[in-house]
Amino acid sequence: MISLNSYITNKVKLIEDYMRGLFPEQTEIPNFYDAMKYAIFVGGKRLRPILTFIACELSGGDIRRALPYAAVIEIIHNFTLVHDDIEDGDTVRRSMPAVWVKYGLDNGINIGDGMFSFAIKHLLDCEEYTINEKIKLLSLIINTTLEIFEGQALDMIFRRKDYVTEEEYMRMIQKKTGVLLSAALLGGAIIAKESNERVLKALELYGKYIGPAFQIRDDIIDLTEGKGRGAIGNDIKEGKRSLLVIDLLSKCTSDEKARVIEILNKPREETTDNEVQEVINLMKKYNSIKYAEKRCIELKNKAINALKNIDNNNEYKSLLIQIAEFIVLREK
Amino acid sequence: MISLNSYITNKVKLIEDYMRGLFPEQTEIPNFYDAMKYAIFVGGKRLRPILTFIACELSGGDIRRALPYAAVIEIIHNFTLVHDDIEDGDTVRRSMPAVWVKYGLDNGINIGDGMFSFAIKHLLDCEEYTINEKIKLLSLIINTTLEIFEGQALDMIFRRKDYVTEEEYMRMIQKKTGVLLSAALLGGAIIAKESNERVLKALELYGKYIGPAFQIRDDIIDLTEGKGRGAIGNDIKEGKRSLLVIDLLSKCTSDEKARVIEILNKPREETTDNEVQEVINLMKKYNSIKYAEKRCIELKNKAINALKNIDNNNEYKSLLIQIAEFIVLREK
Repeated sequence: MISLNSYITNKVKLIEDYMRGLFPEQTEIPNFYDAMKYAIFVGGKRLRPILTFIACELSGGDIRRALPYAAVIEIIHNFTLVHDDIEDGDTVRRSMPAVWVKYGLDNGINIGDGMFSFAIKHLLDCEEYTINEKIKLLSLIINTTLEIFEGQALDMIFRRKDYVTEEEYMRMIQKKTGVLLSAALLGGAIIAKESNERVLKALELYGKYIGPAFQIRDDIIDLTEGKGRGAIGNDIKEGKRSLLVIDLLSKCTSDEKARVIEILNKPREETTDNEVQEVINLMKKYNSIKYAEKRCIELKNKAINALKNIDNNNEYKSLLIQIAEFIVLREK
Repeated sequence: MISLNSYITNKVKLIEDYMRGLFPEQTEIPNFYDAMKYAIFVGGKRLRPILTFIACELSGGDIRRALPYAAVIEIIHNFTLVHDDIEDGDTVRRSMPAVWVKYGLDNGINIGDGMFSFAIKHLLDCEEYTINEKIKLLSLIINTTLEIFEGQALDMIFRRKDYVTEEEYMRMIQKKTGVLLSAALLGGAIIAKESNERVLKALELYGKYIGPAFQIRDDIIDLTEGKGRGAIGNDIKEGKRSLLVIDLLSKCTSDEKARVIEILNKPREETTDNEVQEVINLMKKYNSIKYAEKRCIELKNKAINALKNIDNNNEYKSLLIQIAEFIVLREK
């Protein structure tokens, strides 16, 4: 059996070496191509390329043919982070200055736009895929990005209103996080010429569930360890309606509710660390962190359950199970 | 012979009706789809779709087959305007609040991203083109957008430095404006199955020349009539290194040069109307406006000259000539 750790180490090197080779070396516009490299190589778990590789191997495909698509997905993921950081006012990403902080807001927007075009151009230009595969992969990618932006639009609406239901929240993070993980997996299967609809459906569902599980775990980490964004409770300052917030608001007294909303709605630079702590204390009092952990585990179980539709009980399926288990346990 | 006016009136209606049908009516995210419609239907000359139609008809194609591509190009053009307005700090577009002013900066970025994906999705989903045509048209579009963003990155570098040569400037605006006009024309020809390389080259060159001609005329209008952005001399406040500025700096005394650069480098909100007038007066003193008009006419002549390679001396070629003539004469 392959160890998840060695698989990841090996594949992270593979995709990073490949991606490094894509960008021009010296250009007259360092605020464009060098900035893209900064955005991409400042860190990252490379979860999406790894999912593409696993899905490709699970269906008996050659991993080298999966490389261009995996790179495209990873670049697009990083593009969304570049724009998200501006939209959310986040100044730190992976313990380093966010792209827009390092290069300026104007460049930040343009760098993200460039990454999106650069990624699609690579898919169109690469020699690994047939024209039919290119169209299939592109449709998958573009339907996915559109859904991500729809999710982001929903998120912005939610931040501007006081009450969000758990169902609304789950739909939003599925769009923001789940669909891209599904696309990473489905692309890998398409490249391996997987034709079994049950396998495709299983991979899609798995991504749809681990995406939100990943996000909820991330939101819990933000309250305990911080997300490498310089401080604990960043999401509270940002006014984010996370599952923790939604659960807390559904349980606390109306006075507490008013106070929590007051703190969340404050401009982020006016929210004090004491106020952040106040909200965290209430979350502890009402077991909202425990509730989020429970939901996270439920989603993980659903993801693993979806894999039952994959007959090939091979080592790659086991890697997907291990990844799901890892997501709900990770501390940073 | 077709009159340019009636051709434009007719085709503007055609493309606007078509585009209106593309967007969902009522959604739960008005800050996304409604905002896209705001961005697109607040106004606009529809120059790019018209060029696509003319190129298609010039090569004997059916204009109805050109509609999806023309819409995609127009939506992408408007997406770049949505992001440009944020990047440049422009608050007014076509005499109305810019998208980011109306919907907020965070939504503004996301709406632009959404328009880009929405446009490409339409090209992938539409039934008018074969898979081969889709790949060709998409490559054209994506190479073009990447070049636009490269041009924008160059523009941002130029705004942060004092001296820019005319050659640097021309290269930058060719990327920012020329390539998309070329793509509008080339796409129309591809849809009409044009195979004559000389015709394709002529259309590409025509776009490459009228793009900068259009931009230079726009920059002149900004100093005389204003660009529908609420005030005259907006570009000066923004610190834009236009051809007018480049020419002025190459002719004025070193004291005047220092003063002009001082005014251009001031944050836009600190630049007074008197300072704007000071720069305009210097431009008049040194004939920089006349110089820009001259360069604009030269570019127009080059564009018309490029069309000589098109043998079919038909009415559509005459429309392209009329458009080039109109661009250098227009007052707003």
